Amino acid sequence: MRNCIIASTSTLHGSGPLEYLQEALNELFEGINEILFIPYARPGGISHDEYTIGVNNIFKKINKRIMGIHMFEDPLEAVKNAKGIYTGGGNTFLLVDQLYRKGVIEPLKEKILSGTPYLGTSAGSNICGLTMQTTNDMPIVYPPNFRTLGVFPFNINAHYLDPDPNSKHKGETRETRIKEFHNLNPQPVVGLREGSWLRIINEDIVLEGGLSARIFEQNKTPYEMNSGNSLSNLH
Amino acid sequence: MRNCIIASTSTLHGSGPLEYLQEALNELFEGINEILFIPYARPGGISHDEYTIGVNNIFKKINKRIMGIHMFEDPLEAVKNAKGIYTGGGNTFLLVDQLYRKGVIEPLKEKILSGTPYLGTSAGSNICGLTMQTTNDMPIVYPPNFRTLGVFPFNINAHYLDPDPNSKHKGETRETRIKEFHNLNPQPVVGLREGSWLRIINEDIVLEGGLSARIFEQNKTPYEMNSGNSLSNLH
Repeated sequence: MRNCIIASTSTLHGSGPLEYLQEALNELFEGINEILFIPYARPGGISHDEYTIGVNNIFKKINKRIMGIHMFEDPLEAVKNAKGIYTGGGNTFLLVDQLYRKGVIEPLKEKILSGTPYLGTSAGSNICGLTMQTTNDMPIVYPPNFRTLGVFPFNINAHYLDPDPNSKHKGETRETRIKEFHNLNPQPVVGLREGSWLRIINEDIVLEGGLSARIFEQNKTPYEMNSGNSLSNLH
Repeated sequence: MRNCIIASTSTLHGSGPLEYLQEALNELFEGINEILFIPYARPGGISHDEYTIGVNNIFKKINKRIMGIHMFEDPLEAVKNAKGIYTGGGNTFLLVDQLYRKGVIEPLKEKILSGTPYLGTSAGSNICGLTMQTTNDMPIVYPPNFRTLGVFPFNINAHYLDPDPNSKHKGETRETRIKEFHNLNPQPVVGLREGSWLRIINEDIVLEGGLSARIFEQNKTPYEMNSGNSLSNLH
């Protein structure tokens, strides 16, 4: 069982945090009043408390209360008892490092695979892939492992960006980076543009949000997949 | 003793590889006919042989021969006997992983610190900092460690990019990423723009190339340093 929204970003340019997802979140978290928030990714280095307060301010508009996992004595119990879970964005290395060090990786995986409603944005979406190896983030800490939850049998590249044809910059494009990844790793990568999300219900994985996604498979030319299509057979 | 060129990029938009560095390379490698090339970073996933042949084609114009480290039975002996060394760009995780697995990290560090002329571009520059944790690359492999050569007491951010004030993209800017790094790590970071390099001669570290660099120190507002200035006291 799975019941997830896996979003590229929390926030779209020109609108408030999670605003574009409000309808989808109402459906995902229907009947749930309290959501466990995992703030470990700490965007911009803000504290767990600051991050949690900000997210609570967003969710109270749809009449839900947020509890940060760091507010519990035992994070494993917090995960086990959660009715719904949200993992926010920030730095994926830091998030994965904390999930391992707190022992939360396996309980979180089991919880999501038992059908508990789960929202991931950015780093919180990356961790649902097989590994965190297609993150765009800086390796600011050394996590014990790059393996992540494997809620689906591919990887996510959040905030996917198309190459800028006018760029004079010689740093690698996102597409080149993913090609390098595929030289050493077999799993497909879903390049999720800002505004896209995956809606996962049990065996179904559907691309939502109106934009196409760019799909990278090893030894294949990358291709576009339109919104509304299924990724259930991608592995 | 140190004698290094630490460049942001091998190639500038609209000119050939290493073309903008030709004069500086003639001086760095003066009197040296054969240079040991470390191709482990494999840009775009090309093979060690392809990469080495391409670099040899560049260096033969200034009458130097390139030998790839992978062409030697014993990479440690190759490093010990090198008269000059060039580590090229590509993926920093892959480069660091290979340097550790081949046992080359310590010999390479000793060789550079004994004054052997060394050229680094991009990933080959990142590895001369204290850690590789301010790379822009994707973590396509899990290296045994993020610590690198520590040829100087700070980190490099190669291909440094200023925030685009017109961007609607919500992925982190380079500056935000480095701020996150400084939440957990103390060493300064030198944001080297494409076209900049550090010229290191013994105790002196001078910014070259006409552009300013952006300097990030923990708990300080980032600032610009002009070309021609010294970074010898940055630590």
